[in-house]
Amino acid sequence: MKFINSAFCFFTLIIWSGSLLGQTDSLKIREIYDEALINGEGYENLRELCKDIGHRLSGSASAERAVEWSEEKMKGYGFDKVWLEPVMVPKWVRGEPEKCRILSENKELDVLALGFSTGTNGKLKGKVVEFQTLQALKDAPEGSLNGKIVFLNQGMNAKLIDTFNAYGGCAGGRVVGPSEAAKKGAIGFVMRSLGLRADDFPHTGIMVYEEGTDSIPAFALSTNSAFYLATALEKNPNLELELESNCKLHPDVASYNVVAEITGTDFPDRVISVGGHLDSWDVGEGAHDDGAGVVQSLEMLRIFKALGIKPQHTIRCVFFMNEENGSRGGKAYAEYCKERGDKHIAAMESDRGGFTPRGFHIDGTATDIAYLNEWLPLFEPYNIHIMKKGYGGVDINYLRDTGAALIGFIPDSQRYFDIHHTANDVFENVNKRELELGTATMTALIYLIDKYGMPEEINN
Amino acid sequence: MKFINSAFCFFTLIIWSGSLLGQTDSLKIREIYDEALINGEGYENLRELCKDIGHRLSGSASAERAVEWSEEKMKGYGFDKVWLEPVMVPKWVRGEPEKCRILSENKELDVLALGFSTGTNGKLKGKVVEFQTLQALKDAPEGSLNGKIVFLNQGMNAKLIDTFNAYGGCAGGRVVGPSEAAKKGAIGFVMRSLGLRADDFPHTGIMVYEEGTDSIPAFALSTNSAFYLATALEKNPNLELELESNCKLHPDVASYNVVAEITGTDFPDRVISVGGHLDSWDVGEGAHDDGAGVVQSLEMLRIFKALGIKPQHTIRCVFFMNEENGSRGGKAYAEYCKERGDKHIAAMESDRGGFTPRGFHIDGTATDIAYLNEWLPLFEPYNIHIMKKGYGGVDINYLRDTGAALIGFIPDSQRYFDIHHTANDVFENVNKRELELGTATMTALIYLIDKYGMPEEINN
Repeated sequence: MKFINSAFCFFTLIIWSGSLLGQTDSLKIREIYDEALINGEGYENLRELCKDIGHRLSGSASAERAVEWSEEKMKGYGFDKVWLEPVMVPKWVRGEPEKCRILSENKELDVLALGFSTGTNGKLKGKVVEFQTLQALKDAPEGSLNGKIVFLNQGMNAKLIDTFNAYGGCAGGRVVGPSEAAKKGAIGFVMRSLGLRADDFPHTGIMVYEEGTDSIPAFALSTNSAFYLATALEKNPNLELELESNCKLHPDVASYNVVAEITGTDFPDRVISVGGHLDSWDVGEGAHDDGAGVVQSLEMLRIFKALGIKPQHTIRCVFFMNEENGSRGGKAYAEYCKERGDKHIAAMESDRGGFTPRGFHIDGTATDIAYLNEWLPLFEPYNIHIMKKGYGGVDINYLRDTGAALIGFIPDSQRYFDIHHTANDVFENVNKRELELGTATMTALIYLIDKYGMPEEINN
Repeated sequence: MKFINSAFCFFTLIIWSGSLLGQTDSLKIREIYDEALINGEGYENLRELCKDIGHRLSGSASAERAVEWSEEKMKGYGFDKVWLEPVMVPKWVRGEPEKCRILSENKELDVLALGFSTGTNGKLKGKVVEFQTLQALKDAPEGSLNGKIVFLNQGMNAKLIDTFNAYGGCAGGRVVGPSEAAKKGAIGFVMRSLGLRADDFPHTGIMVYEEGTDSIPAFALSTNSAFYLATALEKNPNLELELESNCKLHPDVASYNVVAEITGTDFPDRVISVGGHLDSWDVGEGAHDDGAGVVQSLEMLRIFKALGIKPQHTIRCVFFMNEENGSRGGKAYAEYCKERGDKHIAAMESDRGGFTPRGFHIDGTATDIAYLNEWLPLFEPYNIHIMKKGYGGVDINYLRDTGAALIGFIPDSQRYFDIHHTANDVFENVNKRELELGTATMTALIYLIDKYGMPEEINN
């Protein structure tokens, strides 16, 4: 029985510390990389998703077209099962125009409203108070910002090597900044975009109004516009900004996660899920965020089929809806799994762009991490070197209480925050080989997990 | 004496296998990365080199402007010494127009003459014979290509993870293909560009006519044009190509390597050189190839100065002239070193683009490699994971007989052959953080080599 084989391998791997890594596994992993690099369909799938459908914010018509495209694509590959999982999602519409102007200079700045922001209801004018940090804004005296527009000019920390850490250090300012400003009397909120590069592309992203505070319009300025405004303020601290937007939050609408699976030969009730999110922000084409993760997850399943690998466990590809502004899809998927009685042994998420793969972050037990590290030598020929404790991902995080290891796919992070949530996140900025190497890396790890099982499973 | 300290550290490092890596070194390396990421001047220097000067083929007026710019830049930083090293270089001029047309369809293909190619002397017309490999061309019967144009349609092997290996497997076809074709009677040579992506950018590069064979005009087609031609040939094996070019090789002209150094406090006669090549091909802006390597080498020296690091050994930054078509600068530098009696303990080259750093290839003794590997844990926070046997680089290779370890800086290779030797190798395609991380990685290794010495030096 295969399972005994798994248990055997688990122990030998742990004890002999990488010395008994199978030649068979090396060869199979090489086949997986070859299939991704030579016959890969992910790049062309991404082109369709980006060019034929484009950006696809939850609740939009294009998000629904993306659902249809996904279902059709999955059915076309002939996987064992393909289904939709209904989920109600928010419908926020950006509207037009979006403007931010320095009145005294009649200078237009590059701006995008933040997701869930209210509109300005005509033109909104005010003097500007600049803060360098969210904490400084929180520390502002009560009423000190009455009638003012807050400018949160917080820069991401370029010293941090993993740019996601730099983003994490600033994202709070975007999410809660508008409400913190409103508490002190502000009538509007603009912030420096969460990007590391000096350019003209504003980065949108989610913000959340705190209950009981006024909902004030909130915007992101491109980094160049933020530098410009800061300089203008030095010269003229009394300058006024004029803001304009027509954003609107509509009632929730119906949407779907899209799921495909190859049913396990030996353990059909034990599931390994691999996913990305189908929705994107409503600018650019959602190419890296997260078209890449979506097509990589689909390719994972296609490669299993193309190579004739019949998994012991059920392997699923999940396109989550609404990661960007609500995570309703991730939550719903976990609930559907519970209802079905799915037993997850692992879940993987790709939502950090289609860049050169570096490895994985594991949100699991110390045993899981040690176990997965035993396989790292198999990945050395592919320059995969990270297998360590870390966050899995927003959507799979809802599977936490299943006890499954949550695995975040980690590509190189250096360019991600040049394009994240901007008009620049387009197909042309995805490199075919980088995307495919990521796919192969994900698929190879799923192959090993399926073949040998996870520690929790083996020990019980 | 510092040297005793070095010897001590060498042995403890070897014996305790990484357990005694100094806290001091960690902190200094962190300072180096911070300086590169926060105060880095490499990106703006690269902008000047690319935008104010542009491409700079050896022997061109712009190459001479690049020499002036380099000398001025180095002097501006106030290093201990800055000098020019005269070297005679080839002067090959591409000329205009460059054309390749399928006559029956009147279809223009995207084309660039290969470096050192002769011109067509008017229009050159011929039927086409396609080969998939250089070997197949070599195997063609004597006289079988009389009056024909050879089309070498050899694809780079996408399965190879390091794209330089895929390039290495095909570059011979470019270098010797035209003469091999001429030996069999061909009158012209076109080849599929050495790139991994399907696009419209032809890649130029060096070719060398074999003495005693006819010099036939040689061109690279963009990958898309090569696919087009191959398809057209399937439909019409008798189609004719018309080629046109006005390339010309002029007599050699004078040029220079540009060198700066910080003289060593304890061992001024012992040298560590770090360099890239100042020349580029005559398309694009030579941004990744090798503006990146040039500004990184300069930054290395600037960072030493900015952080007040007074090296024990003499540390040099070398801008080599003429790597692309002759390597005269690399050769001359080695000869000047010999004349001066410089004793090299190590030399590093950056000529693989300004992409995210992965590590180093060491062309040195097994002892060198083991020794340098002891430092790898210091680089782990920066995701540097490669320190293994490999090629150092074209320019520093001339220092081989000094016994110095030759160290090739290894950035991520996935995107390099999208831009290499094309009009697409422009400043905009270099990412600031990737460039800076590379600089810091190079500088940190040079810092450690200077502080602790190299094994050969310590043991003698």
